[in-house]
Amino acid sequence: MDQFPPTRRTQLKRLPKRGVYDKAAVHAILDEGLICHGVFTIDGQTYVIPTGYVRVDDSLYIHGSPASRMLGALSQAIDVCVAVTLLDGLVLARSAFHHSMNYRSVVVLGKARLVSDPVEKRNALHAFVDHVAQGRWDEARQPTQNELDGTSVLALPLDEVSAKVRTGPPIDDEEDYGLPIWAGVVPLRTEPGEPIADPRLAPGLQPFDTARLIRG
Amino acid sequence: MDQFPPTRRTQLKRLPKRGVYDKAAVHAILDEGLICHGVFTIDGQTYVIPTGYVRVDDSLYIHGSPASRMLGALSQAIDVCVAVTLLDGLVLARSAFHHSMNYRSVVVLGKARLVSDPVEKRNALHAFVDHVAQGRWDEARQPTQNELDGTSVLALPLDEVSAKVRTGPPIDDEEDYGLPIWAGVVPLRTEPGEPIADPRLAPGLQPFDTARLIRG
Repeated sequence: MDQFPPTRRTQLKRLPKRGVYDKAAVHAILDEGLICHGVFTIDGQTYVIPTGYVRVDDSLYIHGSPASRMLGALSQAIDVCVAVTLLDGLVLARSAFHHSMNYRSVVVLGKARLVSDPVEKRNALHAFVDHVAQGRWDEARQPTQNELDGTSVLALPLDEVSAKVRTGPPIDDEEDYGLPIWAGVVPLRTEPGEPIADPRLAPGLQPFDTARLIRG
Repeated sequence: MDQFPPTRRTQLKRLPKRGVYDKAAVHAILDEGLICHGVFTIDGQTYVIPTGYVRVDDSLYIHGSPASRMLGALSQAIDVCVAVTLLDGLVLARSAFHHSMNYRSVVVLGKARLVSDPVEKRNALHAFVDHVAQGRWDEARQPTQNELDGTSVLALPLDEVSAKVRTGPPIDDEEDYGLPIWAGVVPLRTEPGEPIADPRLAPGLQPFDTARLIRG
């Protein structure tokens, strides 16, 4: 299997059995998530900012306004840390102490790069929109040059990456298994509701099909 | 309304209309979320760690093993940054450029404090378990002194706090509203699936009722 080599910074110190470095597993987590938390430090102050993202091949892309503090800072090749976390379930143990959560999380460390190549930039934005809904880029009104200029795209290479995963039932103390307390996992999933059409929707359009969502 | 006073660090620089400082609104976001991202720096290296949390009054509590890097670092009164983000919807605009997401996010800045008072610690752990499922603490096997000693609880005061919220339909360019492209919002919600009983469940127990989940 193709693996991310663990580094001093990504090697799990505790609960090493939860560590995942397999590239396909990491990519699957990144492709299922919609929001990352980007972390960076400017002038000694650390910021954490939730934002959308998309993975293309071996890069993670984020975008935003060229005027944003985050984009401006990150394009200076400063160290950045990006986390994506999917909450998969609540783990109800018989003992209060052993309650837990099932989750899959990825942390990417590295330095971001401002994407200047227009083809790479457009491909990233295309992937960004299609990450939310399959085929959406092609049906949307295409970006103008002004809009492209008004969007900064940053790429973070997927080099120094680790994932942590917990799955399965609670792990109780042996003597607690006989207790008359319900125990198990309540799975959690992000589910779409009924699409809410824009109040100014043009007439005669088909409703949006939520089967097109990556998590639909 | 009771407000968190914006500080130099929490005052939004961009899109200030998305800023929320109302305490009740911030508390509602924190009470609905289950996972936070905690950020801290040790020896020049910044870490971001997803973990459970609970709010009680004007404090946010996280817990973990006394052996964990995060808990050890945070209890040294270093600066910490905690983010909670709820993704509420996908905003599909007519133009690719105006695609967005509806979300509610909170960032708390401050210094964490190791909870040493046994009553405060127990109350926090009680709230922690009940944050996941109402009344769960009372039905679970109570913690032993060993288990309490094996759990560190940190408190972060809710003093320097800001929230960002986006709601509502896409904002398209005026000339795009007539385009024959579906636009609107696809609401997203974290939904529980059918509870999966532990394979070693004691016989004769009622199934878990997901109406007890805070998001159920």
